[in-house]
Amino acid sequence: MTRWMSDPFSFQVLATDGCARAGEITTAHGLVRTPAFMPIGTAAAVKAVEAADVRASGADILLANTYHLMLRPGPERIAALGGLHRFMNWPLPILTDSGGFQVMSLSALRKIDERGVTFRSHLDGATYELSPERAIEIQNLLDADIVMQLDECLRLPAPRAEIERAALLSLRWAERCKRAFEGAKPGRALFGIVQGGDDPGLRLVSARALVDIGFPGYAIGGLAVGEPQEVMLKTIEETAPALPLDRPRYLMGVGTPEDLLEAVARGVDMFDCVLPTRNGRHGLAFTRFGPVNLKNARHADDPRPLDEASTCAAARDYSRAYLHHLVRSGEILGPMLLSRINLHYYQELMSGMRAAIAEKRFADFRAATRAAWSRGDIAEWA
Amino acid sequence: MTRWMSDPFSFQVLATDGCARAGEITTAHGLVRTPAFMPIGTAAAVKAVEAADVRASGADILLANTYHLMLRPGPERIAALGGLHRFMNWPLPILTDSGGFQVMSLSALRKIDERGVTFRSHLDGATYELSPERAIEIQNLLDADIVMQLDECLRLPAPRAEIERAALLSLRWAERCKRAFEGAKPGRALFGIVQGGDDPGLRLVSARALVDIGFPGYAIGGLAVGEPQEVMLKTIEETAPALPLDRPRYLMGVGTPEDLLEAVARGVDMFDCVLPTRNGRHGLAFTRFGPVNLKNARHADDPRPLDEASTCAAARDYSRAYLHHLVRSGEILGPMLLSRINLHYYQELMSGMRAAIAEKRFADFRAATRAAWSRGDIAEWA
Repeated sequence: MTRWMSDPFSFQVLATDGCARAGEITTAHGLVRTPAFMPIGTAAAVKAVEAADVRASGADILLANTYHLMLRPGPERIAALGGLHRFMNWPLPILTDSGGFQVMSLSALRKIDERGVTFRSHLDGATYELSPERAIEIQNLLDADIVMQLDECLRLPAPRAEIERAALLSLRWAERCKRAFEGAKPGRALFGIVQGGDDPGLRLVSARALVDIGFPGYAIGGLAVGEPQEVMLKTIEETAPALPLDRPRYLMGVGTPEDLLEAVARGVDMFDCVLPTRNGRHGLAFTRFGPVNLKNARHADDPRPLDEASTCAAARDYSRAYLHHLVRSGEILGPMLLSRINLHYYQELMSGMRAAIAEKRFADFRAATRAAWSRGDIAEWA
Repeated sequence: MTRWMSDPFSFQVLATDGCARAGEITTAHGLVRTPAFMPIGTAAAVKAVEAADVRASGADILLANTYHLMLRPGPERIAALGGLHRFMNWPLPILTDSGGFQVMSLSALRKIDERGVTFRSHLDGATYELSPERAIEIQNLLDADIVMQLDECLRLPAPRAEIERAALLSLRWAERCKRAFEGAKPGRALFGIVQGGDDPGLRLVSARALVDIGFPGYAIGGLAVGEPQEVMLKTIEETAPALPLDRPRYLMGVGTPEDLLEAVARGVDMFDCVLPTRNGRHGLAFTRFGPVNLKNARHADDPRPLDEASTCAAARDYSRAYLHHLVRSGEILGPMLLSRINLHYYQELMSGMRAAIAEKRFADFRAATRAAWSRGDIAEWA
């Protein structure tokens, strides 16, 4: 067990099946089995799910948002309290984003130039500056195991000139982040982020330049920002081959269960997304047979559990009628149970993919999983 | 274990110390150690706390609200789904109120006469009728272990004539409820409710008349409805002696930790109250050293747990700084942790009282508990 505290960050591909890979990331706070899904603990808390239950769902790592934590409670405060792991009682690996994405989506009056981003907090209007160097400093204060470079992420569609400008700026920031990250604690890793929007040529330029700079892992950023799924998948297909085989590939902010399945088929190793928890708060459950909207009146008298084969007790121990009642009544217990059920489903899917890749039956797993989703949930209940 | 399913309802006083009593109620769904505090599962869910965690806090029984459940999802539906225990995944005893109190406090356009109450739902304005017979029918459909008579509960202060009218009406309803309850499942019990406001004479009339009718347990209702604590305690002192020694006494809708301590000292065996969960949702924690308002900025950098001696892991595993952050950020995890911490504190208090009564040191326990509350929480942290 001492290797957890002393080994440097590393990634090992243990099995491949087509483009899909199964592997293991070693960090200062433990192992991450890949393909990995990272639940989101935006403000140092996974919404409506306790840390111990996030772990019990099968998650090896979670993601926290630099933007939110820099505004409240502040990275210096978290550092003084012993770092993010201790603060949120999550002793396992944590990845933090750089804050760039939320600056774009949440803050007001943002101004971007070569030095970095200036913006006003969505909480109180206070002005903040986020440079590549400060983004690294904040993530180190939080004591993240995996740190992300600051990048500029555009919504799609966007003009090509704009995509190019942002991609090149992100590359210059990648270099500055790498310099700023020198001397970070052992076992921590900084990932570069491929940008370039939906332009294959720019994606390749970005990927190759990042590989030249050299990172222990690479993210594909700027997707799932408004483009059709086929554009996203095509971009992954074109980008992944330009990334080193021996480094983890992280598709940021993605996605639906289908997105995950299709992206793993194209060589992606890591994901994060708010969908399981956000949808859980809105009454939507993910299951083996596709999504189930528990707001729907058809569940009101349904004594069946949501999924008797789920790894999540809440999906087995409560009837659909009860879950429906909780959602309709606005009981906090509804989001609590559904968010947990959804996190379990996402981890079951990842675990199923890892096993299938290890056993060289990923194509069958993918077909069977898609067939079960297509069958749908409603058919069973007359 | 078979006795749980076959024995009739019973109550046994195991120890007394002054007026305080420690005992055991046997129900069809298990034992209730008294003095007992019942967490509130208004709409078939304890707000922000899972059933298993309610149990882990030390609760033997919970209370559910007939008013809310009759409106949504409906008692016939819950009965068809196997009853309230199964519906909410709480296999232990449940007490239901009669709905009368919430009709008064929540519904619109209520009209009360000899037959019962007519009111409009606060949810959709639909008209409902609640008679003594229907109140019993609903509670039996829910499969409550302890069923409460329908009564009329007034806010205090109120004119004496009004208090008298409501108390006498409640007595007539008590007789009708008793008749309606004949033939209920074995092990279930119907409690009568003493009314009479802050008038000692009316309280005695009500208590004696109920004892004449004969119930397996008696509640003191119509308190904690606006009167000072001393009036409440005086009313308990005057009422309790009129109730049989061998029947449980239940003080409805009470109260603060101090209310509980003082009411047990005066011979009360059972309590229910929203305070631990409602205050938990509003950032207030109950501790051995009194209430702690976690919204307060003084906690922002405090690395100490809320109470390292708590039976609740959440009070030990998270810093005050983290709890403060959750409350300030509006994270659902805040209400989740604080509600659970508060339920644990209430059950610790009950468990402490039970042990003290059994060992004839209740006066010392009461003094030591009050002294710790008076000491306060802030002193430790400079």
